Amino acid sequence: MRSIKQHIVIAVIVISSALTGVAFSQKPTIAPAPNGITLPTDYKDWRVIATSHRTDNNTLRVILGNDIAIQAAREGKTNPWPEGTILAKLVWKDTQHEKWPTATIPGDFVHAEFMIKATEKYATTGGWGFARWLGMEQQPYGKEADFVKECFDCHTPVKANDYVFTRPVSLP
Amino acid sequence: MRSIKQHIVIAVIVISSALTGVAFSQKPTIAPAPNGITLPTDYKDWRVIATSHRTDNNTLRVILGNDIAIQAAREGKTNPWPEGTILAKLVWKDTQHEKWPTATIPGDFVHAEFMIKATEKYATTGGWGFARWLGMEQQPYGKEADFVKECFDCHTPVKANDYVFTRPVSLP
Repeated sequence: MRSIKQHIVIAVIVISSALTGVAFSQKPTIAPAPNGITLPTDYKDWRVIATSHRTDNNTLRVILGNDIAIQAAREGKTNPWPEGTILAKLVWKDTQHEKWPTATIPGDFVHAEFMIKATEKYATTGGWGFARWLGMEQQPYGKEADFVKECFDCHTPVKANDYVFTRPVSLP
Repeated sequence: MRSIKQHIVIAVIVISSALTGVAFSQKPTIAPAPNGITLPTDYKDWRVIATSHRTDNNTLRVILGNDIAIQAAREGKTNPWPEGTILAKLVWKDTQHEKWPTATIPGDFVHAEFMIKATEKYATTGGWGFARWLGMEQQPYGKEADFVKECFDCHTPVKANDYVFTRPVSLP
């Protein structure tokens, strides 16, 4: 039978664990993709490479790039993209602007998806690592590491463009 | 009558001026807007606030913001936007993606336009200074300083949103 002191020690441990859990839940870490790729921490601060509007699934997109990608885009050296390139595609559902009905603008956030160039590491998928996180909760997409087959298959039509759909925008 | 020496001095001055002219023409400065606003030098490096697709004039847009604007957008403090905010709207003509026909992507660059928040300085136009530069040559838009009347009139429907059409995107 436990003493009063033992009961107090156990109670303190239980309460401490609960509080630690609360603290963690306030700063949730984003789970990695099933292939081990982790979410780039600073992607929302990256610079713009392009935008697009898909009418087959009614989404607006902004494509950002890390510093390596931006330099390559501005120098026109994107076929192939250099090692270390990361492209981020941010996707929102279409909505109409309430004061300008012919303007389609971003509504609910759908997902953020990434292509990471590492030719040897990702040799079986064109030299690109693929990953996607869904929604505002940033749940990793896919159940097994082979989810990337779906990504890669879809990108095969642009094999001649280093498997990348995005064309960097013209800028003065 | 001039001496040989005087002729040589004049010739050197003329040639130097010509060379200086050539040097300047290699790095053209962008003319200010008719209201005196100068093109922000680093706007292409600013971070993303939103995107939009206008089907009334078939253009895709990316809206960027300076650091003050980005902080305000992320904190949801955009009505009114803070003093010193600069919003940049980059506009391209629609084109279709050759490998994904239901995707509209940016084609030719149309213009870059700006809204600069300085409540007292621009009191007659809602506290915003307006400016636009056309095309890859970045020719300032408007002939006289009152070109901003056109900008301001167009933005009047969104007076209740601090005269700004753009809604910052949702991001995780």
